[in-house]
Amino acid sequence: MIVSIFSKQLSMNQNHSSASTPVATPTDLTILLEPVKDELEAVERFLNSNLIDDSPFVTELLAQVFKSGGKRLRPALVFLAAKATLIDKNQTDERQVILAALTEFIHSASLVHDDVIDNSSFRRGQETVNRKWNEKLAVLAGDLLFAQASICLSRLMNPRIVGIYGQVLGDLCAGEIRQMRQQFSLSAGWDNYIQKSIWKTASLFAAGTQSAAILNQRSESEIEDLKSYGVNFGICFQIVDDLLDITGSTSSLGKPAGSDLMQGLITAPTMFILERKDAQAERLRHLIETRAVASAEGQEESLSIIRNNGGVESTVELARKYASLAQNCLAQVPASQSRDSLEYLLDWLLTRTN
Amino acid sequence: MIVSIFSKQLSMNQNHSSASTPVATPTDLTILLEPVKDELEAVERFLNSNLIDDSPFVTELLAQVFKSGGKRLRPALVFLAAKATLIDKNQTDERQVILAALTEFIHSASLVHDDVIDNSSFRRGQETVNRKWNEKLAVLAGDLLFAQASICLSRLMNPRIVGIYGQVLGDLCAGEIRQMRQQFSLSAGWDNYIQKSIWKTASLFAAGTQSAAILNQRSESEIEDLKSYGVNFGICFQIVDDLLDITGSTSSLGKPAGSDLMQGLITAPTMFILERKDAQAERLRHLIETRAVASAEGQEESLSIIRNNGGVESTVELARKYASLAQNCLAQVPASQSRDSLEYLLDWLLTRTN
Repeated sequence: MIVSIFSKQLSMNQNHSSASTPVATPTDLTILLEPVKDELEAVERFLNSNLIDDSPFVTELLAQVFKSGGKRLRPALVFLAAKATLIDKNQTDERQVILAALTEFIHSASLVHDDVIDNSSFRRGQETVNRKWNEKLAVLAGDLLFAQASICLSRLMNPRIVGIYGQVLGDLCAGEIRQMRQQFSLSAGWDNYIQKSIWKTASLFAAGTQSAAILNQRSESEIEDLKSYGVNFGICFQIVDDLLDITGSTSSLGKPAGSDLMQGLITAPTMFILERKDAQAERLRHLIETRAVASAEGQEESLSIIRNNGGVESTVELARKYASLAQNCLAQVPASQSRDSLEYLLDWLLTRTN
Repeated sequence: MIVSIFSKQLSMNQNHSSASTPVATPTDLTILLEPVKDELEAVERFLNSNLIDDSPFVTELLAQVFKSGGKRLRPALVFLAAKATLIDKNQTDERQVILAALTEFIHSASLVHDDVIDNSSFRRGQETVNRKWNEKLAVLAGDLLFAQASICLSRLMNPRIVGIYGQVLGDLCAGEIRQMRQQFSLSAGWDNYIQKSIWKTASLFAAGTQSAAILNQRSESEIEDLKSYGVNFGICFQIVDDLLDITGSTSSLGKPAGSDLMQGLITAPTMFILERKDAQAERLRHLIETRAVASAEGQEESLSIIRNNGGVESTVELARKYASLAQNCLAQVPASQSRDSLEYLLDWLLTRTN
């Protein structure tokens, strides 16, 4: 609710410099992804391909994981980055489909393992692997998705991209481990928060946009710009995710608001309150330190403190800052419909509700 | 006990054709691995290196996983294959250490995930990650070991080896999934059993020996020989593993004999009995079909039927067959101490008790 009130102020809507500037910034994801519609359909088919063996069961497992859909934001960024940096726009490149699929395989593997860890039964309305079969199979299914990603990686025949994704796998684990070890900890600062967001989220987005430019054999400076776009997009995405935990509704999130807080995950909206030196900060600190925040009442009180003392507004500002940094990375990218989408997606990020 | 009775007959001990033929076949692993002692020390250090970040906790996690030791058989095969196919034996190649480490990282990742799945508290006398910390961290620790492997893979800068290990990851999952789905199933035949053994076990051994030869830029026929050696070594290793579940003791195995049977895993010793058309076969089939084999009495009766009706002897013969196939793959490998060890390791395999 709160996010939708703010969304009107959020639109970055500043002098879009591309050839096809529309009057208003589109924030409808379907419109934004129109330039890569065919590619997203191709990746959807690819995600369901069993690259490992001829077992119908492995195929069934993949279908179960991927039928819940999802926004396919990582593949979309790969394709948009690929098209925006391609000289011959009509050339289709099967390697970009493989790159997009590999990025989504890694994302899905981490979700399947998260569902085991959190003992979740549903994701986007579909049964999780651990619920439909069992935990043992779900651990294996996650590993199997990593294996699918590795097979994709080998098909690209590009050692530099192997290195990038190797580091991404490490970053994902490093981010999750750091998050787990800092539950209920009040001592971690902003650098730590941003670093964790890079590891957990932004690294994978950045690997996709950077590698798309590498496959297109762009210059080092263009590759670096696309990577930085992905990093800043990813940090912004994570900040908005953390914001939605404070402002979102169960129906839009698919989980109750305040879930992060209950688990002792201290994110931007909470950190903005804690850094103040007033009674509200003291009270919130107390609720976390005593772990009262893990109870329904403590959680409700904490959410109120954060919502009523500017935690949301400050977090929106922080997200805008990273969206703006991402936008700056597009300065040298030539005008095209795909470049427009990369830019407007930053507006969409700031207004998304799930 | 039964294995040690048979071990005297098992030694293949047939006209070893190398330069330094000893009088008796050494079956002491320390002696067999002497040619690669320095390399195994180097890999031990490498296994404890945190390739992901500068977090002391990740380093602590790696130390916990690797301090339980283990025979490091996969790294040993990599180094022996590397030395046996190297023209300048004094040349040291850091890439072989990375290859060996990557092979052990993948093996360890699957063990850490197995321990989560089986809720095991100890492995080789050391606390498992799930016991020392928790399940959530153990799922992540397995993923982290896969990430370490991926980073090693990228450092080798060899697209062919990336492809080999990508397929290995798929094979490991395919093997585990097939095994899980065939629990208590009596319809799977020998082809299925061997295929499962290749996926679960032999693929990783073969990836190591094959890739060692690739890094040494050997001819395609030499690379193929080393790969086949690894496949047959691995199948033999798995058959002996399955045998030890029938003949071994809790003290040597670190788990009770008959554990596989209790879980409904139908392996070679059981299959040899089941394919007979007599009352013993009928009784064993009944114990499995009714799942009586999962009870202490049913398990004891099943073990007796298998042990007293030639299940052990037939399995030993099968293992010898694959050891012999592996030995044949060494025919074109020039005489050296490392080649001897590759050959004598096959004898060791047939006599090992854990």
